[in-house]
Amino acid sequence: MTYPKHLERVIELLKKLPGVGAKSAERFAFELVGWEPRSLRELGEAVAAIPEKLSTCPSCFSLMGGDGCAHCDLTRRDASTLCVVAWPKDVFAIESTSQFKGLYHCLGGHFSPIEGRSPGDLNLGALIERLEKLKVEEVIVALDATLDGDATALLVTEKLSRLNLKISRIAFGLPMGSPLEYIDRGTLARALDGRIPC
Amino acid sequence: MTYPKHLERVIELLKKLPGVGAKSAERFAFELVGWEPRSLRELGEAVAAIPEKLSTCPSCFSLMGGDGCAHCDLTRRDASTLCVVAWPKDVFAIESTSQFKGLYHCLGGHFSPIEGRSPGDLNLGALIERLEKLKVEEVIVALDATLDGDATALLVTEKLSRLNLKISRIAFGLPMGSPLEYIDRGTLARALDGRIPC
Repeated sequence: MTYPKHLERVIELLKKLPGVGAKSAERFAFELVGWEPRSLRELGEAVAAIPEKLSTCPSCFSLMGGDGCAHCDLTRRDASTLCVVAWPKDVFAIESTSQFKGLYHCLGGHFSPIEGRSPGDLNLGALIERLEKLKVEEVIVALDATLDGDATALLVTEKLSRLNLKISRIAFGLPMGSPLEYIDRGTLARALDGRIPC
Repeated sequence: MTYPKHLERVIELLKKLPGVGAKSAERFAFELVGWEPRSLRELGEAVAAIPEKLSTCPSCFSLMGGDGCAHCDLTRRDASTLCVVAWPKDVFAIESTSQFKGLYHCLGGHFSPIEGRSPGDLNLGALIERLEKLKVEEVIVALDATLDGDATALLVTEKLSRLNLKISRIAFGLPMGSPLEYIDRGTLARALDGRIPC
């Protein structure tokens, strides 16, 4: 296939996006070719401006805009609870529930020997420092229900054990709307384990 | 969900890509946040430079880079056959077969009253002009095997009828590797219709 050079370049760059293979990248590129120059400039500039407009909060390691970290604002957040997550996107997922008003701490990933992430690569030291400084009473561990998530939750619990805090992990069970008959054994076992009084 | 403003903006712009919904756009945006500033600048500039680096060939209406249209180069292409397609991407799909060495002509879409595209919106006048000028002997209609593709093929055949050319349409039948039992009735009927002597 001999695409014009610049189209080839756009396709190669788009292929770096997660889950975007050659076919999708080609589709995107051909679509972009049909866009107005103004829209292309808008998208191009927005992408290039990411490092300047968005940064990692030095305290909770989530993502923040130019106006500071909304999740670390102690005048608006309940400092008695702190939620430990793996990635900034998890912070926004939890925020979307409007159920949690406390603080967050992003570890920057899961502890995963297979992917070459050791405990030293996670923002654990900073978490302990924060917990020692803030008056947090409960730490909620909100990590994936995967092997890596489980290993990381264990690690976090162990590291925080000497701080004398209440530590909990978000529940495992049936996702909303799912009929019991289609649920896998593992989920069902954990849902039974985590049963709550009616 | 309260994403930082710039993240929200990047997500909104990415959602304009074909087949990209809110979830995918968010995934792309969070991935982009993790990219090196240099890679972001590269992608941003490549996107913004599309109108300057890529243009529509005034002759075949396919896509061309700064060095002219490779598909209209009469020193390298066989001018006795011309393939009529709907979109520039179809040109590159046919080129990828290495089976066709002739010229192309992009209509710019299908004739589709439902989508508001009338025959006047297609590059048909330019096609007739080209055919009158060039020494084309056979026109191959390579349009989608859809209702719109069929209607457009009929239209093209009708418009070109007075030019006294051989006109053919690419074959319909079983796609490679597909077992007969899973093929829909329509395809099977057309495959029977288009049977070729062994």
